Amino acid sequence: MVRIAVIGAGRIGTVHAATVARHPDAELVLVHDPVGNAAEQLAAVHGARATHDIDAVYEADDVDAVIVGSPTPVHVEQVVGAVRAGKAVLCEKPVDLDLARVDECVVAIAGHEDRVMVGFNRRFDPTFAEVHARVRQGEIGPVEQLTIVSRDPAPPSPEYVRTSGGLFRDMTIHDLDMARYFLGEIVEVSAVGQRLDPAFAHLEDVDGAVTTLVAASGAVATIINSRHCASGYDQRLEAFGPLGALEAVNPGATSVRHSSATRTGASGPYLGFFLERYAAAYSAELGHFVDAVRTGRAPSPTIEDGRAALVLADAATRSAATGERVRLPTTATTRSHP
Amino acid sequence: MVRIAVIGAGRIGTVHAATVARHPDAELVLVHDPVGNAAEQLAAVHGARATHDIDAVYEADDVDAVIVGSPTPVHVEQVVGAVRAGKAVLCEKPVDLDLARVDECVVAIAGHEDRVMVGFNRRFDPTFAEVHARVRQGEIGPVEQLTIVSRDPAPPSPEYVRTSGGLFRDMTIHDLDMARYFLGEIVEVSAVGQRLDPAFAHLEDVDGAVTTLVAASGAVATIINSRHCASGYDQRLEAFGPLGALEAVNPGATSVRHSSATRTGASGPYLGFFLERYAAAYSAELGHFVDAVRTGRAPSPTIEDGRAALVLADAATRSAATGERVRLPTTATTRSHP
Amino acid sequence: MVRIAVIGAGRIGTVHAATVARHPDAELVLVHDPVGNAAEQLAAVHGARATHDIDAVYEADDVDAVIVGSPTPVHVEQVVGAVRAGKAVLCEKPVDLDLARVDECVVAIAGHEDRVMVGFNRRFDPTFAEVHARVRQGEIGPVEQLTIVSRDPAPPSPEYVRTSGGLFRDMTIHDLDMARYFLGEIVEVSAVGQRLDPAFAHLEDVDGAVTTLVAASGAVATIINSRHCASGYDQRLEAFGPLGALEAVNPGATSVRHSSATRTGASGPYLGFFLERYAAAYSAELGHFVDAVRTGRAPSPTIEDGRAALVLADAATRSAATGERVRLPTTATTRSHP
Amino acid sequence: MVRIAVIGAGRIGTVHAATVARHPDAELVLVHDPVGNAAEQLAAVHGARATHDIDAVYEADDVDAVIVGSPTPVHVEQVVGAVRAGKAVLCEKPVDLDLARVDECVVAIAGHEDRVMVGFNRRFDPTFAEVHARVRQGEIGPVEQLTIVSRDPAPPSPEYVRTSGGLFRDMTIHDLDMARYFLGEIVEVSAVGQRLDPAFAHLEDVDGAVTTLVAASGAVATIINSRHCASGYDQRLEAFGPLGALEAVNPGATSVRHSSATRTGASGPYLGFFLERYAAAYSAELGHFVDAVRTGRAPSPTIEDGRAALVLADAATRSAATGERVRLPTTATTRSHP
Repeated sequence: MVRIAVIGAGRIGTVHAATVARHPDAELVLVHDPVGNAAEQLAAVHGARATHDIDAVYEADDVDAVIVGSPTPVHVEQVVGAVRAGKAVLCEKPVDLDLARVDECVVAIAGHEDRVMVGFNRRFDPTFAEVHARVRQGEIGPVEQLTIVSRDPAPPSPEYVRTSGGLFRDMTIHDLDMARYFLGEIVEVSAVGQRLDPAFAHLEDVDGAVTTLVAASGAVATIINSRHCASGYDQRLEAFGPLGALEAVNPGATSVRHSSATRTGASGPYLGFFLERYAAAYSAELGHFVDAVRTGRAPSPTIEDGRAALVLADAATRSAATGERVRLPTTATTRSHP
Repeated sequence: MVRIAVIGAGRIGTVHAATVARHPDAELVLVHDPVGNAAEQLAAVHGARATHDIDAVYEADDVDAVIVGSPTPVHVEQVVGAVRAGKAVLCEKPVDLDLARVDECVVAIAGHEDRVMVGFNRRFDPTFAEVHARVRQGEIGPVEQLTIVSRDPAPPSPEYVRTSGGLFRDMTIHDLDMARYFLGEIVEVSAVGQRLDPAFAHLEDVDGAVTTLVAASGAVATIINSRHCASGYDQRLEAFGPLGALEAVNPGATSVRHSSATRTGASGPYLGFFLERYAAAYSAELGHFVDAVRTGRAPSPTIEDGRAALVLADAATRSAATGERVRLPTTATTRSHP
Repeated sequence: MVRIAVIGAGRIGTVHAATVARHPDAELVLVHDPVGNAAEQLAAVHGARATHDIDAVYEADDVDAVIVGSPTPVHVEQVVGAVRAGKAVLCEKPVDLDLARVDECVVAIAGHEDRVMVGFNRRFDPTFAEVHARVRQGEIGPVEQLTIVSRDPAPPSPEYVRTSGGLFRDMTIHDLDMARYFLGEIVEVSAVGQRLDPAFAHLEDVDGAVTTLVAASGAVATIINSRHCASGYDQRLEAFGPLGALEAVNPGATSVRHSSATRTGASGPYLGFFLERYAAAYSAELGHFVDAVRTGRAPSPTIEDGRAALVLADAATRSAATGERVRLPTTATTRSHP
Repeated sequence: MVRIAVIGAGRIGTVHAATVARHPDAELVLVHDPVGNAAEQLAAVHGARATHDIDAVYEADDVDAVIVGSPTPVHVEQVVGAVRAGKAVLCEKPVDLDLARVDECVVAIAGHEDRVMVGFNRRFDPTFAEVHARVRQGEIGPVEQLTIVSRDPAPPSPEYVRTSGGLFRDMTIHDLDMARYFLGEIVEVSAVGQRLDPAFAHLEDVDGAVTTLVAASGAVATIINSRHCASGYDQRLEAFGPLGALEAVNPGATSVRHSSATRTGASGPYLGFFLERYAAAYSAELGHFVDAVRTGRAPSPTIEDGRAALVLADAATRSAATGERVRLPTTATTRSHP
């Protein structure tokens, strides 16, 4: 039984707490949140203890592992604190919005990298994971073109946008990780940003983007993002190779098809957002983490994967701002290869 | 070049005339219709001659083959007349609504059966034909269960219904032929009729039916019919065997898919009716007939296939009326095996 | 918190125990199985007590409700025993293979019918349930034709077949309940059995069937069954009405599509069998039962639904054996209307 | 009846000749080809005259319109020659590989632009055309993101590649026209080329590309090209807007779906290449041209559309070579707006 503390009792912390509670080999023992009585409320649901004191998490003898689901600015200090206290860590993405801070984190946990996992949940989505596994088995030959469509159902609040680090670091980063997961080292990034929703006119951020990545292998990945999608959370991927293609169609809540006088074969809208769309992915992600903690094997994705995705997000941000393509040093995204 | 006369300048005759005109190895030379100036109008479109005199068709030296697209009651006399005049014949289904009359026809053309083809157009639909060919190649093993959905877009007029011979002889007969085409000899028929549309309350006919056929092979076919379908002309088929299944999905006018706030992946409505849905089938059917005439090979389906489908339609009509299953003599539907 | 005992530690009991363990408002307190140490093993997984003594279940003060997942022959005595002991009961289908025994059960629990639920899990499948809800909302008008395809992946063992009560009582009964769920009162049953797999040549049962049901409403349901399906567990349904159709497509494990030189858009095989295919249905079924116990509302489907499905299965068995259609007395399947 | 001469009896000329022959309001009267007896052979199929002398085409009194399907280097002189002779012209794409030559052509036909149509056949594909029409009707709001996948089944010969003008001018030009057709004026082009097939290692061309276009409207188009595709000719498009999305799925030869032990719902491979895939488009394109000639209305796409697509192809070629994005003068692609 892996005994787990969840740091952060917000939206994502609540997901992780419930996922831990359902896992047969994991136990939620502690919830931390400094604000109000959020920690107490979440802990009560699952019969766990609550604390406002972050040191209490590090010092808890009955905590084997920590899930960091707090706001991004405190990720690094909590990852370092937990690792130093001998805990295994699953840290939500992004590790930090500032690459220098991530590098500090990497230095600080040196020698313990194999105790830290970064929460790129999409790698664990059953449909994406199946595509990845079949690609690895050679079913389509080496991937030549990867196309990712990733659209949120509706824009976040202006407040969220202002502290998000921008579209590429906040939203595209998931897709950038997927590109690395499928293609390995990325050597060039080009991005075009769009201001689609009038609400973004007064924000210093874009709400649409097309990002093109060139891999060292010669493969090209295209990522199409939008902060809105009338049909819901649009999450798709196609890997194309010389022997064929594998496509991850966006799954729905059910498989009902409707026909009427005006249409045939209509599915329902897409799943609402990431909590619904990636419910199975969060379970599988935790399962991987718990297995790693139990067996002592290094989990994946690593903090280097988190760093590499941020390098790509920074490059995409710069490319969109300057209109230039950004060449990456060959080791920029490959210190920890998929 | 096969020189063709079309008898009947109504809806189906018009289709055949245009199909002949487009065929590179066929030439429309004569159109017959006794009513008004229908023959003249249709002939003018294609630069052919017109006549009101049926004997002129039989006597025309420049006519190699005749397509009988006249009203059902005159089919038999025209088939016999044309065959006796040495013409090859493609006769629209049904040969006649009265089995005794069909039998008279069979006797009358004895020795010339291989000059007469019956127009079960669905055998020539590219999608159904591909399923049939792949079944023959053994892709799913012997067919065990065949499911046919066949729904018209909207009911015909009461006048049409009254002289149609009833749903099973008028509409289901196509599906009965398809069942024979896939399963061979049929030994038992059971049918349930439905009165769905209030317009049929005062008609001596049903407008919905489920017909179950048992084949000598042990396979079972299910035919689901309706005289209405909100989405258009619904024409589908599934062949199931021990190694898998082959399904004929209803093709649409285009392959556009629409997604919105309330649905995703919606196709347009089905094609309107048989002229649109089976346009390619009519072309392929004529191609088969023209090839048969040119090469002297016997065309298929034969008049025996036309007779066998009528035997099944009669049995289905009786079963729906009495509530009894109808066993067929083993030779009833197999004198001309698919 | 509803405290639950599971009777039967076999395949379905194991499913129910795990489902209870995951339910936030239910607690597994006791597992019963008379054979070997099956009860002990299953109980240990979930930290529950085990017993070989059925009376211990009835007498347990800390048991609010019982799930009967034992072999069919002991269902009735256990339902009655539990109800008399004041427990709510969720009984697996079928209640019994013998209608007389079911009637005895109905009499024995008179006055407590609202404490007994029968486990027709398919009503709770998210896709089927959505079709049902949308039909109820009038989206396609009154259902006129219902088509159910229900095929197992592979035949059960000869031993299982011999005590199963036959295909219609063992397998079709689920589809018969679905027909009632969608169409209400059924007035006529006609069934054709098939012996498809050579393994069934020496068994007194069929392994394929097409069953046609006429509803009091005039609607017709068609059920197509097979004990084998190369692609896995094939579970589909189409409801057709004057305004359109709602189809329940068989969901897959993922939504990957594969294209290669020989095919495009290929999904993976169907889910293996009912444990995978109906995992969500079992959870929703338990959720409904737990809610009923907590709120005191009568659960559905009821024992009368269980009885009615058996009446239809008996009729289908007789129809397949005799070749006759079976008319049902108008109250045969409607004492407890959906 | 529009009397038509076809210049060029190669692959595309043969398609146009057959399309003319089938059109009820057009007549093929003359075929020109300078090489061997190609003109004679094609003319004979359709009962037309043949000539090796291009002036004979211009001088023919019984020729109303000319279809230019000759090799690209002679397009301009033939367009100009035919226009000066008073003929209407349908010219295959590209008008020329050299923009200066296209400009000369524009000057030379000044005042007769409305007599010249350029053969961007995809605008007339029924599926793409339906998406375009529904976009125009506002079904998804203004297009924000357009994604085009366009992959050939297999690379052309090295000889073809060497004189093709390169991937962007030869292949992508169709997609660039589609981008303009949907988005109007394009202001920025960025392209990444790929050398995927080893056969291209010694050729001065790429065989894969991802091209990103920014429209004046703010919309972004992404074009994904490959010279090979295991599944056949892959031609798809998705238009995304604030109210939803319209997708053009690649249609197949039939709508058969196959299920087996290893897969479900598999369609056949894509159609082989453009002759099959765009058969209906060529018919509709000719229909538009014939209507324009008969009514005197200007056809579309115009020579300015042909010029604008070449401007974009040149820009994409330069971008792929230099790694720089190419900004276009605001009038570069809009002299003739869609």
